[in-house]
Formats: sequence, C-alpha cells, structure tokens
Amino acid sequence: MTIKYPAGTRQNNSVQNTIRTGKTTKKALTFGKRGMGLEDEINEANDYYLANRLAVVHKKPTPITIVKVDYPARAAAKITEAYFKQASTTDYNGVYQGRYIDFDAKETKNKTSFPLKNFHPHQITHLANILSQGGIGFVIIKFTTLNEGYVYPASSLIKQWQDLKGKQSISYRDIVAQGYLIPESLNPSLDYLKAVDLMLESLK
Amino acid sequence: MTIKYPAGTRQNNSVQNTIRTGKTTKKALTFGKRGMGLEDEINEANDYYLANRLAVVHKKPTPITIVKVDYPARAAAKITEAYFKQASTTDYNGVYQGRYIDFDAKETKNKTSFPLKNFHPHQITHLANILSQGGIGFVIIKFTTLNEGYVYPASSLIKQWQDLKGKQSISYRDIVAQGYLIPESLNPSLDYLKAVDLMLESLK
Repeated sequence: MTIKYPAGTRQNNSVQNTIRTGKTTKKALTFGKRGMGLEDEINEANDYYLANRLAVVHKKPTPITIVKVDYPARAAAKITEAYFKQASTTDYNGVYQGRYIDFDAKETKNKTSFPLKNFHPHQITHLANILSQGGIGFVIIKFTTLNEGYVYPASSLIKQWQDLKGKQSISYRDIVAQGYLIPESLNPSLDYLKAVDLMLESLK
Repeated sequence: MTIKYPAGTRQNNSVQNTIRTGKTTKKALTFGKRGMGLEDEINEANDYYLANRLAVVHKKPTPITIVKVDYPARAAAKITEAYFKQASTTDYNGVYQGRYIDFDAKETKNKTSFPLKNFHPHQITHLANILSQGGIGFVIIKFTTLNEGYVYPASSLIKQWQDLKGKQSISYRDIVAQGYLIPESLNPSLDYLKAVDLMLESLK
C-alpha cells in the first residue's frame, strides 16, 4: 500500500521497511483516513510532528537475522536468506519536549476488551525499564470497530499484566477509565500527542 | 565474532542483527578488550547500564528493504531477497535519567583528524532535530591508534559540518578541546556515560 503524504510533511521519517509485520490489517478500514492502518496513522503523525517541530519519533526497523548475503561484482549487496526476529523492545521511541517517549501500538476488532497476548513479555519488561529511568512509556490501543484510540499508560499495563496471570485481557472499561482517548483530528488523523499531554498533565 | 558477556549482564539488549554493517573493523584491536570493536564495546556498555539500571539504550536494527518473502508450509517465513538501506537516523538512542539521548559511534585509524565523510547528511539533520526538541545528541569518536574515545557534542559537530563545506575533517585538537574524553574503565570497557555526565555538567 502506498501512502500519499501531504506535500512537505514527509521528511526522512518514512516507513523503515517495506513489508508489514502483521500488526496492521491490510483491509480498508472505516475509521481515520480510508485505507490507513494503525501503523500508517502513527507514521503520518510522526511525519507531521517532525515537520512541525513538535517531536522526533521514529519507528524502529524490523529486526532481522541475516544468514546469507551475496556480494555481486557491480551491484549492491543482496541478502538471500534472512528471518524475522522477535523485537526485544517496543516499535517506537523518540523525544518530546526534552523527554524520552517509548511506546508500542496495537489494534483489535474486539469491542469489550483488549487481549494481553498482543504483548510479548520482553516488551512489558522493556516498558518497566523505561519507567524506572524516568521515561514516558505507554501503548496506543485502537478499537477499530468502535473507532476509538487510547493512550494507555505503561504503569497500568504492567500492573494488569502482573495481576491478570490467569485472565486474558484488559477490559474496555479499564482502558476508558485509565487511558486517555485520542481526540478526533484530520491532520494528522491520529494526533496521539494530544492524549500524551493529558496523561502527563494528570501525572503531575 | 562471538562476544562473551559477563554473567547476568546480558538482558535483552543483544546485537540486533547478526551481520556487521561495516562500521567496526573485524581485526583484533589493541585497545579495550582484545578483539572488541567499537560497536561491541558500546553494546557491552549498554548491557551493563541496563543490568545496573543506569540507562536504557539500544542499538537500532539495521534497516532493510525486503523484496521477496517465502512462506513455507511448516516453517518460519524466509526472506529470500532484501537489500541494506541507508539509515535515516543514528544507530543508538535511549533514556538516561529521564532524558532522551541519541548518538552514533565511529572509529578512525587517523591520529590527527576525523573525516566528516563518516557521517551522512541525514544523520546530521537528525541530530539537529534532536537538539531542537531538547534531547541530548552526540557522537562517540574513537581514535583507535591513539586508544582514545570521545563524546563529542552534536552542537559542535553540526556547526563544523556547516562550516567545513570545503574542508574534509575535524581536527583532533578540536575534538580534544570540545569533546569529553571517555575515561579508562574495565567493566564496561567503554563507560561512555561518564563522559556524557561531564558534557551535561558543562552545559548547565
């Protein structure tokens, strides 16, 4: 899928890899900009933030284990065997008003809860490490059917991850109560820093 | 090259890709830990910082453009055609005492100067963006022959990059004057946060 960016807003913050890693659906969605998955929306927001000097946030490249590389005589090195590797951190990090922010983004079609299996244990550990260093950690959770996106604090996620060993998901009610709704917006379509502002305000 | 980490210090901060991207030499070096290149030394320091809760810094995965992927019936997806892509940011970022830090690391055999061609224009732009957001930006420059490593502020690098359009390198003298020598250390062998502390102190 090719994304058309507004002229001038796309600096060097483009999608770092050309393949999807299964976190965003490929179907046209009815919320936000037509045809944009959550990852595209976040990339668009990051481009907007960079162009408008509001924040510098990049998606990390997909981690790959490279097994074989060909070095043709007059051409670029070609990777001929490689495998996807599980990321040991979250997908996004950067700087916002001097502070470190770090997050992952997930979407679900569920309407009443968010399955915790969407996160890997090392991502939870990573977010806990970030918090212990005074960084700002959160996840963006999008309920695609409801067309609602939330910034959900890492502190809440970590607590529930520990509590809910048996239970499989966080209830929608908890996310509404402890998260921060990302307000509707046109450009960027997912102006998540607005919700981060609310979170930081309430942490003061 | 396999790196042996001290027991317990290697959390999930391992080298993200198994191939080198040409920034570190493969020859055994006479400084630091025998056989460790600069990238290995930084990874070792990051592991140490993570284990001792001093900072959370990770190397970003190498950016790759994936062209072809096979999905065998009962095996993991296999990438069969991909190419190395130029990174649009620096290699390392993370959080240190609540603040965002961002840097790249380069080494040279030169004794009197550091060639600016080691940096790409978009890395300089990225560091400028980081500074404008209040982040801490720098480069680690290692003179391998002299066995000296410096934390060199992004502000100095950006200024010289702009000034030295014609001239090809920063003099060793400038790096000594404007940079912060990384003190000798055993574990980790490249305790670069010590020099970052000096830099932050002088910026106050």
